[in-house]
Amino acid sequence: MKVLAVDIGGTKIAAAVWDGALGEVHRTPTGSDPWGSVTTLLDPLKDGIEAIGVGCGGPMSWPAGEVSPLNIPAWRGFPLRSELAARYGVPVRLHNDAVCMTIGEHWQGGWGTEDLMGMVVSTGVGGGLVSGGRVLNGAGGNAGHVGHVVVEAGGPLCPCGARGCLEAIARGPAIVAWAAKRGCSATTGVELAALASQGNAVALQAFARAGRAIGIGVGNAAVLLDLEVVAIGGGISQVPSLWPTLRLSLRAHAQIDYLKDLRVEPAALGQEAGLIGAAALFVDPDRYWTGD
Amino acid sequence: MKVLAVDIGGTKIAAAVWDGALGEVHRTPTGSDPWGSVTTLLDPLKDGIEAIGVGCGGPMSWPAGEVSPLNIPAWRGFPLRSELAARYGVPVRLHNDAVCMTIGEHWQGGWGTEDLMGMVVSTGVGGGLVSGGRVLNGAGGNAGHVGHVVVEAGGPLCPCGARGCLEAIARGPAIVAWAAKRGCSATTGVELAALASQGNAVALQAFARAGRAIGIGVGNAAVLLDLEVVAIGGGISQVPSLWPTLRLSLRAHAQIDYLKDLRVEPAALGQEAGLIGAAALFVDPDRYWTGD
Repeated sequence: MKVLAVDIGGTKIAAAVWDGALGEVHRTPTGSDPWGSVTTLLDPLKDGIEAIGVGCGGPMSWPAGEVSPLNIPAWRGFPLRSELAARYGVPVRLHNDAVCMTIGEHWQGGWGTEDLMGMVVSTGVGGGLVSGGRVLNGAGGNAGHVGHVVVEAGGPLCPCGARGCLEAIARGPAIVAWAAKRGCSATTGVELAALASQGNAVALQAFARAGRAIGIGVGNAAVLLDLEVVAIGGGISQVPSLWPTLRLSLRAHAQIDYLKDLRVEPAALGQEAGLIGAAALFVDPDRYWTGD
Repeated sequence: MKVLAVDIGGTKIAAAVWDGALGEVHRTPTGSDPWGSVTTLLDPLKDGIEAIGVGCGGPMSWPAGEVSPLNIPAWRGFPLRSELAARYGVPVRLHNDAVCMTIGEHWQGGWGTEDLMGMVVSTGVGGGLVSGGRVLNGAGGNAGHVGHVVVEAGGPLCPCGARGCLEAIARGPAIVAWAAKRGCSATTGVELAALASQGNAVALQAFARAGRAIGIGVGNAAVLLDLEVVAIGGGISQVPSLWPTLRLSLRAHAQIDYLKDLRVEPAALGQEAGLIGAAALFVDPDRYWTGD
């Protein structure tokens, strides 16, 4: 089956044709006219495609596919699924980008498990769940939002309104802000990661703190779902100083016997996981699509 | 289909025949010879049964059904599933008692949802998950262990080895111990609940503290699974002073938009939920049984 796979984020949009394997990946900036960017990217790729699978930043209505991505202010309640179907004349399926990343990791990541959480630690903290070999959607397509698990009751305020959510501590801008309050000059996660790699104490502490929080959040998900694998992607996950405290915190907080072989590792597929998962919405719907 | 449903706990064993509806419930103390108690209870009920469904306290291997219930010291690695199959000559399926309670609530509780967590707050804190209308098992049958979600990082030590698990705060003996340290004379949850109903300040605080912890644990599960309903049973859940802080804490910690209609309520089916769920392992296996 020939599927056009699309991954829509706040900064860039990626697309590739899946035809037994993922073809060349095309990219364009999202810009201020995201629909214009999407169509400019997809129009040259549409020949012979039978379906379009899309991963997009949330929140969204699911499976209706009306999207209001936090990082794409031009779209609020935008009917992305139906607009794509109307323009390209093929079936369209759409899911949260972190869910598509998770599906990609389960389908093609080589993990050898039916119980996996995918996680993206970047500007936000997102995730998705595969349990018993099937993706979980929850009542409204929002299952997997590990960023809003409370890891520090009464902790820092989260944009969702609660206190102490994992995302309020471990998303890139929160890590940078914590370091800035302690005199660190970095204004982006990349800058802060560079300082950490040079041994800057505040930068190291900032990532260590985020790692501790991620360890609790990952442990909570693993204990609740009896997971075997947690695959973590996103820019922040590539900072080495995050991982030692992540593993220590996980060990301390997830001691129950059945988690003794839990593997928590960097995602296997890199940036293409989301595109591969978007294709899987059509290529393997028995496991990855329960919507209409 | 005529199924013999069995619910095995540390204090008592219950059994009833399901034949389109649950028949009369027979009970016996578990005692020091649990296999003797089980067979004495089941032998008179075996005529014409086609299968035996069992809920039992964990931990256990699943689906093999070798049980080591925390509260039944006589059984450590006891091959309950195969022993029952050998004695009664019919297929046997066995799951965690809190999972069976959850299945019962989903199947017959009238909740009208496909995304539900069942929870038992009693001597321990157990649970089970239904997502998209199917029970979740996880890699080894342990999905739903909400009692080991961390709700207070660095908090009290849990028997599992971690600190700050929900069970370490909200199980009956932990609530009683917390109150005892503050001068309260109650030695059981029932006595402490009686004191709370008379307005005893320490007893009220003890249940309020447990309610706060339950609110965080329930919120974490709901955000991660995008649940619509959490049905809470067990003796501790029947103490009225638990609920106001449970609801306040839930509101504070689960603010994300998609949880605004989440219902957290006392379980609908009472003590029979576990028996009904045990029967469902055979009556509706497409939704409730994925083991061998």
